Amino acid sequence: MLMVKRLDLADAGVLLAGARAKAAEIGVPMCIAITDEGGNLVAFERMDGGKVTSITIAIDKAFTAAGAKKATHEYGELSQPGKPAYGIAAAIGGRLMVVGGGLPVVVEGDVVGGIGVSSGTPMQDREVAEAGIAAFLAGL
Amino acid sequence: MLMVKRLDLADAGVLLAGARAKAAEIGVPMCIAITDEGGNLVAFERMDGGKVTSITIAIDKAFTAAGAKKATHEYGELSQPGKPAYGIAAAIGGRLMVVGGGLPVVVEGDVVGGIGVSSGTPMQDREVAEAGIAAFLAGL
Amino acid sequence: MLMVKRLDLADAGVLLAGARAKAAEIGVPMCIAITDEGGNLVAFERMDGGKVTSITIAIDKAFTAAGAKKATHEYGELSQPGKPAYGIAAAIGGRLMVVGGGLPVVVEGDVVGGIGVSSGTPMQDREVAEAGIAAFLAGL
Amino acid sequence: MLMVKRLDLADAGVLLAGARAKAAEIGVPMCIAITDEGGNLVAFERMDGGKVTSITIAIDKAFTAAGAKKATHEYGELSQPGKPAYGIAAAIGGRLMVVGGGLPVVVEGDVVGGIGVSSGTPMQDREVAEAGIAAFLAGL
Repeated sequence: MLMVKRLDLADAGVLLAGARAKAAEIGVPMCIAITDEGGNLVAFERMDGGKVTSITIAIDKAFTAAGAKKATHEYGELSQPGKPAYGIAAAIGGRLMVVGGGLPVVVEGDVVGGIGVSSGTPMQDREVAEAGIAAFLAGL
Repeated sequence: MLMVKRLDLADAGVLLAGARAKAAEIGVPMCIAITDEGGNLVAFERMDGGKVTSITIAIDKAFTAAGAKKATHEYGELSQPGKPAYGIAAAIGGRLMVVGGGLPVVVEGDVVGGIGVSSGTPMQDREVAEAGIAAFLAGL
Repeated sequence: MLMVKRLDLADAGVLLAGARAKAAEIGVPMCIAITDEGGNLVAFERMDGGKVTSITIAIDKAFTAAGAKKATHEYGELSQPGKPAYGIAAAIGGRLMVVGGGLPVVVEGDVVGGIGVSSGTPMQDREVAEAGIAAFLAGL
Repeated sequence: MLMVKRLDLADAGVLLAGARAKAAEIGVPMCIAITDEGGNLVAFERMDGGKVTSITIAIDKAFTAAGAKKATHEYGELSQPGKPAYGIAAAIGGRLMVVGGGLPVVVEGDVVGGIGVSSGTPMQDREVAEAGIAAFLAGL
């Protein structure tokens, strides 16, 4: 039998708030998604002006980061032409995201969830996701 | 050119809070989704204990109610065997929900969004969605 | 080798205009789709106020009527519980529509395309689709 | 509450006509799709000889341009191997188009819809989409 550590809705709210604050600071309205460690959605927000296409992308970045226990930008590097994971961007009906902005949420070495951000550049998305995680870890 | 009224993220937060309070009151942890009037997701919450299968169902109930400008339980009645909309539950890849718990959010006669709730009985889901709308309308 | 009769874009325009005029007359803004005899979309219009959920439904009604050479309301009867086509509403990922409002476009006994209408009651949808076909046949 | 500017069906007709005229001028029958600012289809035409595969591609180009508020050819550049958005072409079940021919329709700084064109080379598709927008802006 396993005992699984998993973020709860209150944790997701802290992650959302941290990400939202950073998005506001850099002036880019974002879609922000939080999943549990199984990749299932816990919370989502599309800030006013966030992109419609980014709804699914943010959710899928969080899904990928939590489910694969890996940042989506790492997949970006691993899936370049000639690299070992080339082509994986099309996996799971396109849900496997290799664009930056998805990060696993890790507590004491365990992945307890994922955060996915979309609407800015991949670097902005990643920065906002990192701010969400920083706020969460600071509050533990 | 059209000018369209649409709920914003702050409005979605009020709808979520009203629904969450009712869900807590009746003791059923829910998935709650808010879409804009075009059916695109604005906010989502899965309360601790909410059902994994209800993530998509709540989102699709909100999508249906906003996009079709009709409560999902009305489709439930209209799509019974022998009724005119029989079979519509399978439409749009199954996204057209005919189970209660999806309501359009209406302001001065205009649909400005949708709320979808899932994890309880359809009647509980509908009651929680109604509580979300009541909280929203009370705050206007 | 086959020679296939198929409506062209000008024909689709006549079908759309006939349907649009009837929709305006009965005061229900509709989604109207025209496919060729292979079920592939030729033309589509969402009248101002037409339902977002009806975009796919109208297209799929036209697809069903053209591809199956049968009115969608006939499938509605044939797919009732206990009837031979029971369950077919879920076929093709839900694209097989059994709700009224999809009609094959028939010229001299040959199906040359399909028309699908959605946003009203199934009876209104069917009436509007019939008006499109009537306008088309009157102009031959 | 937000107030959103959105193109109506008459606007979509002007966009279609402008695009169609350019397609005829360059001798390439096109699929042309118009969506609203939420990415939902408003109007579509497949000119006689337009490609069957281009039906979905045109619709998805318009969806992408409207939803992401960005021309699809910009995604083409940003998603090359080694670039930040590499792999995004597979997102949203492949609906996120990175091939030229999708443009947002912008009025006074606001995205009010999208136009997507397909059947020619990506450069021809883009030229035809631009002609649609030019006709629309000239008529405002």
